[in-house]
This record gives sequence, C-alpha cells and structure tokens, in this order.
Amino acid sequence: MDPVTQDLNAYPFATEVRVRLSETDAVGIVYFGSFSTYMDVGRMDYLHHLGLDQARFPGHARHVPHLPPGAVVQAALSFHSPARYGDAMTLYVRVARLGTTSYTFHFLMTNKRTRRVVATGVLTLVWLDEDFRPMPIPAEFRSAIEAFEGQHLQRD
Amino acid sequence: MDPVTQDLNAYPFATEVRVRLSETDAVGIVYFGSFSTYMDVGRMDYLHHLGLDQARFPGHARHVPHLPPGAVVQAALSFHSPARYGDAMTLYVRVARLGTTSYTFHFLMTNKRTRRVVATGVLTLVWLDEDFRPMPIPAEFRSAIEAFEGQHLQRD
Amino acid sequence: MDPVTQDLNAYPFATEVRVRLSETDAVGIVYFGSFSTYMDVGRMDYLHHLGLDQARFPGHARHVPHLPPGAVVQAALSFHSPARYGDAMTLYVRVARLGTTSYTFHFLMTNKRTRRVVATGVLTLVWLDEDFRPMPIPAEFRSAIEAFEGQHLQRD
Amino acid sequence: MDPVTQDLNAYPFATEVRVRLSETDAVGIVYFGSFSTYMDVGRMDYLHHLGLDQARFPGHARHVPHLPPGAVVQAALSFHSPARYGDAMTLYVRVARLGTTSYTFHFLMTNKRTRRVVATGVLTLVWLDEDFRPMPIPAEFRSAIEAFEGQHLQRD
Repeated sequence: MDPVTQDLNAYPFATEVRVRLSETDAVGIVYFGSFSTYMDVGRMDYLHHLGLDQARFPGHARHVPHLPPGAVVQAALSFHSPARYGDAMTLYVRVARLGTTSYTFHFLMTNKRTRRVVATGVLTLVWLDEDFRPMPIPAEFRSAIEAFEGQHLQRD
Repeated sequence: MDPVTQDLNAYPFATEVRVRLSETDAVGIVYFGSFSTYMDVGRMDYLHHLGLDQARFPGHARHVPHLPPGAVVQAALSFHSPARYGDAMTLYVRVARLGTTSYTFHFLMTNKRTRRVVATGVLTLVWLDEDFRPMPIPAEFRSAIEAFEGQHLQRD
Repeated sequence: MDPVTQDLNAYPFATEVRVRLSETDAVGIVYFGSFSTYMDVGRMDYLHHLGLDQARFPGHARHVPHLPPGAVVQAALSFHSPARYGDAMTLYVRVARLGTTSYTFHFLMTNKRTRRVVATGVLTLVWLDEDFRPMPIPAEFRSAIEAFEGQHLQRD
Repeated sequence: MDPVTQDLNAYPFATEVRVRLSETDAVGIVYFGSFSTYMDVGRMDYLHHLGLDQARFPGHARHVPHLPPGAVVQAALSFHSPARYGDAMTLYVRVARLGTTSYTFHFLMTNKRTRRVVATGVLTLVWLDEDFRPMPIPAEFRSAIEAFEGQHLQRD
C-alpha cells in the first residue's frame, strides 16, 4: 500500500544524516516530526547534486539563495523501525513524479549499519510564481530531473 | 481525495496554537515540518481533555508521565494556505478510527482570524507493549474515545 | 553570579508555555535547545502585550509581519531543575536593559505547579537598519518599554 | 569579553554542519535557537572522536546508547555574522575546563567558505548519578580529555 518502493535500485541518489540528540523525544527514539527535516536534507542534497539548488529559476523564492521555488503541498511518512541518538541513516532519494506544476519526491530511510528500513516518505512540491500561484516547472529544471531519473520517472 | 473532513461539526474538540518564530523558515511561512508539532499538541490536548494523558495504562512508555503508550506509525499532511509568524491557528481534533491495536487522529487546522483552512493532517498510532510489540488498546482508553466521538467513529 | 533575578516582583509580565513532546530528548527531559524557543515565545508575548509586535517600525525586517526589527546577538541560559513533557511553565519576562541600539530581555522560567525555578535566560537584541547595520532604537519603542518597566530598567 | 577564543590553534577538533531549511527563520537567516543543536553536534562528534560517546560510564543516562551521562547546566552563544540556508559551517570544538563534577565546551563556528566567524558558544555539563545528583567525572573520561586537550585545559 506504501507507494514508496524499498528497491534500492530505483533510487539514483543517496545521502546520509546522523541522528542528533535534539531529534529524539522522551521515549528515547527519533521524534516522528524530525523525519520532515530528514526529507528536507534529502531533497536539498539531491538538488545540489544536480546543480539545481540555485535561485536562478523564475518563481517566488528568488530572495532565498540555494532554494528552488517550490512550496510543499503534501507530506507523508510511514515508520517501520525506530531510530536512536547517534544512529547514521542512509537516505535514498528519487523524484518519482514530475507533473506540469508540481513534482513528488520519494524517500527511503535505512539504518546505515543494520540496513533495516526506518521510514519511507513522500513530499510533493508545487512551483509558485511571485504571486504564489502555481506555474509550470521551468524547462531546465524539468530536463535535468528527466535525464537523471530516466525511465522510472512518472510524467503527468 | 483528502480523507480529513473540513466539516467543523465532525470535530468534538478544538485547541489553539500560535506560530512561533522558530517554526517559520527562510520563505517567511511556517516550515512544513512544524505541523508535526502542531499535530502533537492537538493530540496531547485532546487526550488531556479526556483525562487519558496518563501513564496509568499498560504499555511501553510507562516511564514517561502524561504520555499514553503509542508510537506514531503513519503521518500525513496536506497544506492549503500559508501560516505566518504570530498567526493563531485553531486545531480541530478527532479520533476518526479506532482499531484493535491502532487508532487514527484527524486534524483540521485553520487560521483563527480568517477561518481559512491552513492544513489537514492524519496521525496513526499503534499501542505497544513493553517489548515494543503491538497490543490491544486498553478497554478504558477505548471506551472513553468511543463515548466522546460517538457515531462518527470508525471501528475496525 | 546569574544576572537574572528570581524576585518575581521585578517582572512586569508573565506568560505560559506547555512542554511539547518534540521539545524533550532521549533522557526524558526538555532538551536545552528548546529553551531558546521558550525565550522567543516570552519575548513575542511581551511585545504583543505592549502593542510593539508590529512591522511599523523602521528597520530591516519590515517584510515580516508582527516582528520588530532586531537580531539576537547574545543568548544565555542557566538550568536549575528539569522540565518534562506536559509540564506547564510560567515565563516571567522583563526588559532589563535598554541601550542606544540594543536591548536585553531577562527570563525566569518556573514550573507552574511546583513554582520551582526551571531556568533563567538572557537575550540581547540589536536594532538593525535595512543594510543590517545597528541603528538607534525608535523613540516610540523606547518610551513604551520605559513606561512599562519603570525604575528597574537599566539605561546605557 | 567573550571567553571563547578565535585562535583556531586552540581547538584540537573540528567538525562540520550544513544549514538546513528548518533551521532558518522568517528573516532568512539561521534562527538563534538552532545553534544549540550545532553545539550538540559538535559535542557529540568530539566525544565520538575520542571514543567517549559510550554508555559504559556510570551515571544517570545508561539507558541512552552513545550518550555519556551529563546534563547541560549552562549554555551561552554570541552571534557575530548571519548564516543562511545551505551554508556549510566549520565547528571548532574544545573542552576548555575540566572540573570535579562538571566540564565546559567552547565552540567557534565559522562559515566554511568565507572563514568568517558566525558564532561562539559555551556549554557546561555536570555529571549526574542515577539519582540526578552531581558525581565526580570518571577517571577514564577525565584522562582522555586531559591527554587530548593538553596544557591549554583549565582544571579546577
């Protein structure tokens, strides 16, 4: 039922985070809200890898260096096993869907040492113009994602 | 497609948060990850209202005062309009589903002044025993939720 | 040695926070970094009470509604006793010093139920112009603080 | 007046963080509270480098893997220049003071690219026994710090 595949080969990119004390809660495991931050790190590192984390694109957020214009419209996470303070996690990242004005990241987060799946996540962003209305994703951004993701990318 | 209803009458409980500076990001609006914290506040206030935020229940988290034993297994959020520093938000909270070992909160978050919908959220928790295995939700917890939610509550 | 007085009468203003799960860490008590957020809440509520949380003042942050222009240049906290998930804390807030371009908040944070001191804090902000250079605190802001704090206020 | 030296040679250890979107605020720069997290990362990486981030030491936090028993009793930060989303920062870390039951970290945080000083920080921890009372820092922990820090270390 989880749309996020656990097949590592589907992910063209991976990065890493290490759990910080501030990200754990009173039960001693990573607080579920901290995973939003991990998705953000995964997204940023993915875009940086492709040279897409630039303010050169048209859109609403041109005053923010290294942030492509896009607003999160949906976020979802499923938790499979706990992560703890000091754990290193591998974040596998892909853009699974590229629409006209929005696109969707999938994340597979595993314990680096045990390789156990910790969580999966989905993040959908919409590209916004300077009046915060959806606008078409620029061609340069689109073609870079298409070239990197290849045939697995869903277009709609 | 959003399972979370925007009909205010479906929610037996509401609470309030005010946006903190630390919860906004470089674009000047609330960072999407901050909404996990708002769901947590809504959940805690709901359980407190029913006297259910106690460590008296069997389960894994008995060492944490005021935290009923449950681990978040799924979280989802949809964002409808931005919230900004200083905004007051009304959080409408309901338990929409009560299963054998898990239950699901729905959240409707609105701008208190404009009444515009800011976000909707879903949070599913599973009750865990001391070895972190799912266990049936205790009868006292179950019947308090059933009485409070009434006929709208989905049981499965 | 702590410059922050524990004499409640020195504080013309108080507000309240309740500890959220996300603010506790793996040891089960509030993570020390969360207290920065509490100082921010205390500061915001203090300024709101005086009608000073407005973007009407000259300075660098005019695009941020409800945020007077000022950047934190120093922050310090001392921890006296632990706070836990669900604890309500009373935040006593004062402006202890009003300089030409900078001013200093003091915070006394107590457990609302036990009245025990949890933490004390100091936050110094500098007023910045649109080029992020220090500028004199506007007269209206200054006189409102002076009137509210009275004779205890240190001027330099 | 800042007790934290800006002489890089005084620091036997350095690590790195990259600014996350969640750590910036509405003004577009890193929220002052995020620096508490950076100090925590610096502390953890320093202890890990010395093999001291283990639960093998006596004290209150033995249930938390990779966390030596110690509670933060004082934290202070001074901010020198802003950091922004995507900036890499070098964190220089030293233990500047080793007392009987407490010890003090100093942090110098610089922009990795421009080498400009972003912030300095001080963090004092006290070693606690299982009843949360101060206890002497264990000999093994103490001698490892002494050997690593050498003559610059203040003992009291």
